[in-house]
Amino acid sequence: MTHPVPANPAPAHRLRARRLGVETQSEAVVFMHADCPVGRSEGVTARTQIEVRDGARSIIATLYLVSSDMLALDEVGLSEVAWRRLGVAPDATLHVAHPNPLDSMSAVRAKVYGHRLDLLRLKAIVADVVAERYSDVQLAAFITAFSAQPPQLAETVALTRAMLEAGDRLAWPSPIVADKHCVGGLPGNRTTPLVVAIAAAAGLVIPKTSSRAITSPAGTADAMETMAPVDLDLAAMRAVVDREGGCIVWGGSVRLSPADDIFIRVERALDLDSEAQLVASVLSKKLAAGSTHVLLDLPVGPTAKVRTREDAERLSDQLVAVAAEFGMIVRPVLTDGSQPVGYGIGPALEAHDVLAVLRGAAGAPQDLRERAVQLAGGVLELGGKAAPGSGAESAAAILDDGRALAKFMAICEAQGGFREPPVAAFTHMIEAVRGGVLRAIDNRLLARVAKLAGAPRAKAAGVMLHAKAGDSVEPGQPLLTLHGESPGELDYALSFAAANPDMLLVRPR
Amino acid sequence: MTHPVPANPAPAHRLRARRLGVETQSEAVVFMHADCPVGRSEGVTARTQIEVRDGARSIIATLYLVSSDMLALDEVGLSEVAWRRLGVAPDATLHVAHPNPLDSMSAVRAKVYGHRLDLLRLKAIVADVVAERYSDVQLAAFITAFSAQPPQLAETVALTRAMLEAGDRLAWPSPIVADKHCVGGLPGNRTTPLVVAIAAAAGLVIPKTSSRAITSPAGTADAMETMAPVDLDLAAMRAVVDREGGCIVWGGSVRLSPADDIFIRVERALDLDSEAQLVASVLSKKLAAGSTHVLLDLPVGPTAKVRTREDAERLSDQLVAVAAEFGMIVRPVLTDGSQPVGYGIGPALEAHDVLAVLRGAAGAPQDLRERAVQLAGGVLELGGKAAPGSGAESAAAILDDGRALAKFMAICEAQGGFREPPVAAFTHMIEAVRGGVLRAIDNRLLARVAKLAGAPRAKAAGVMLHAKAGDSVEPGQPLLTLHGESPGELDYALSFAAANPDMLLVRPR
Repeated sequence: MTHPVPANPAPAHRLRARRLGVETQSEAVVFMHADCPVGRSEGVTARTQIEVRDGARSIIATLYLVSSDMLALDEVGLSEVAWRRLGVAPDATLHVAHPNPLDSMSAVRAKVYGHRLDLLRLKAIVADVVAERYSDVQLAAFITAFSAQPPQLAETVALTRAMLEAGDRLAWPSPIVADKHCVGGLPGNRTTPLVVAIAAAAGLVIPKTSSRAITSPAGTADAMETMAPVDLDLAAMRAVVDREGGCIVWGGSVRLSPADDIFIRVERALDLDSEAQLVASVLSKKLAAGSTHVLLDLPVGPTAKVRTREDAERLSDQLVAVAAEFGMIVRPVLTDGSQPVGYGIGPALEAHDVLAVLRGAAGAPQDLRERAVQLAGGVLELGGKAAPGSGAESAAAILDDGRALAKFMAICEAQGGFREPPVAAFTHMIEAVRGGVLRAIDNRLLARVAKLAGAPRAKAAGVMLHAKAGDSVEPGQPLLTLHGESPGELDYALSFAAANPDMLLVRPR
Repeated sequence: MTHPVPANPAPAHRLRARRLGVETQSEAVVFMHADCPVGRSEGVTARTQIEVRDGARSIIATLYLVSSDMLALDEVGLSEVAWRRLGVAPDATLHVAHPNPLDSMSAVRAKVYGHRLDLLRLKAIVADVVAERYSDVQLAAFITAFSAQPPQLAETVALTRAMLEAGDRLAWPSPIVADKHCVGGLPGNRTTPLVVAIAAAAGLVIPKTSSRAITSPAGTADAMETMAPVDLDLAAMRAVVDREGGCIVWGGSVRLSPADDIFIRVERALDLDSEAQLVASVLSKKLAAGSTHVLLDLPVGPTAKVRTREDAERLSDQLVAVAAEFGMIVRPVLTDGSQPVGYGIGPALEAHDVLAVLRGAAGAPQDLRERAVQLAGGVLELGGKAAPGSGAESAAAILDDGRALAKFMAICEAQGGFREPPVAAFTHMIEAVRGGVLRAIDNRLLARVAKLAGAPRAKAAGVMLHAKAGDSVEPGQPLLTLHGESPGELDYALSFAAANPDMLLVRPR
């Protein structure tokens, strides 16, 4: 068949870019007027995906239609992330059009129906995910498929490789690059600064990138930031590691396994924990960071992420096996995840615990110290700085003779200077109403209280425990203190604590 | 433990409601200022789910944060669907808070991991879905799980029942209530007005509710609307059926299986067709409509929804078996889905085809006539108005002697009055560039051209075919004519047609 071809076979539709100042998290959202002629001729409808192009750069965005005077007919409004991703100049005109079909979704559908995916198809999916071409609905299908059709080793290896290769990779001039990672958060489990200080003091290279809190009251980067700058670029990070052997910086300024952050957001919304996803997530980040020897802390407990010893062992086996395919040595350590570690929960409160342990202060939390010694010992053995079985002893010695404190202070100085963590202006102590034994602490409820008190945004906010599980408790004895930077937030945390009295469970002896 | 309980244990957060005029389709979206004190104290972040309450009514909405002056600090901006669902008065103040956890998601997770869901758990899921408590991500997990872990009969029956019971149910004072439904659209397949006219003329009760187009160039309700009003409420629909035995109305004003529309939106975004979902979708709607005897048209073809005869037969077996559990009799009819039916594609163009068949006009599309006779014959046999094997003959007689036309006109009058469908102001004919045989027509591309020309919004817009697959074609012979209500839309459809010359495939003889 034939017919006259119009001058422009794929008509371009230009609209004036307008920055709306709307935060939509990682989802690019654009707004067009419902009567916009471009939208009409494209036949667009609200909540569909649309391609927005500025010269050579383009993004896929969710479209909403506006019938008020918020937008003119010839404008396209952009959310903040859409604006940033496209790198728009303020007076730019943008093309909008239906997006090309997402070919890699056919691989996701194949996975849904039980087919295995090879590296090529997984790379195509991950590339589209990293380019933010996947909508939430499509991401959810991918995550769900991996839970419903658990992959075997080869597919998990391929997924790890696809995620690894989609981002940056760090390289270090050392044959052994040590690392540690905690799988599944536990409030207050802030061993990283201690482990890095001990390992670096022993001569290991341990360039640690840490995350900020996403759903927890504090990430390692949040706690560390109360003691030293953590927002270092790659060059600054390299300078610190060259000088001190170790660092504790925020990983956000380097792009290690960028697909991981996107997957994690959707996994969290679904509360789905595919083991393969977890393995690929952890290992792709560690491989991208250039690590060769990784100690993995797996807290196990009824209110921790990993709930039983069997789950932990199965997960450990997978982590070791997949890491081995990349020549990376992983040592999982199963730890007690039944209650928080240390006394403080919240960025500054956790930093105070860390400093107390480093300084050998009276009243320093012994559980945090012992756990850090155990994990650092594992790192020393992994890195060849201690004989098998003697790592913990070496680690304890480095801590006790002040070498760890000196190394930590040197690292802080190299990162921009040490500072003492802040103290909250408002506190409220909660006492035991009756005596007995503190039987159990609910990690999840306690984390929620700390967040309501303002953590991690309010650095000094959070919860300070005065008793741990197994302790005897007298009536009237302090159980915990809420810390807040404002009276309002403190009240709000108190309300929640009042509604959840079993958060700290005291039973008669 | 104990502590003073604040006056208000769950502080309510009030914000002034502001209608933003933003169309977000079925997803409720609300906007708060990034510095809003309520949001700060709740610790909300962009793109999380939030509960918005106005007295006893509440909705779950996706939250975006605004840093511009679009909103004041004490305002909450609502999208149109959020505004409607909550039924807000213009000067209302609303409470916003974190939503309660969605308990039914644990059942979705169980399904993901391969467990079967019983009626109780499916009803809990469907109730939350209908209450719009599910986010897109959660809906996608549900849909994906049913594709990845295909249910057996009992679970499909339970899903159908859960969907049925979540909405309204119609009842008719007749032991036999006939119905017909086409599974998977085929452009131009507008047999419903013909089948209803023939069946009602034969004395059957056939109260047909039809849908408008969602992704296609025309739904039955769109085509019918060019001939008579279709937007009838339940009382008006009953009056038509009482008087004429049948009707052809839009189903949108009755709430039949409301979960279905929500599931379909997500299935479409994923391009996932779970057979069980399809079965539950079709049957829950038909059961809710009060139908007892249903003829199902299943077009089979390479560019139709059902692609092979085997798929069609497996699907038919499931539909019959599940329907039987509800005492509903279903007769599937496999039809040719290899090309469009009739000549017109688009609301008015399809209506012209229907009227030509009813009027016995010269040049009436014979394929549409034959298919309507076949399907109406099946309905007559199902409903006891024709002996097995003689239905098509009876249907043809009713069509040929004018009874079907008379009944159709009577139904149109009862629905508010018959009108002739409109004719497009702008047309463009496309001719064959070479001779040969028209081998194949791509349903999907052709539907896209009709939509670009303006269908279904522009009622007279669409495509008129002048040749069908198998026809001999001479060079310069008209192949199709584009119809549009504006020159711009016509140009746009032309561009797309030019870019897709194989849409109508002419090969040498």
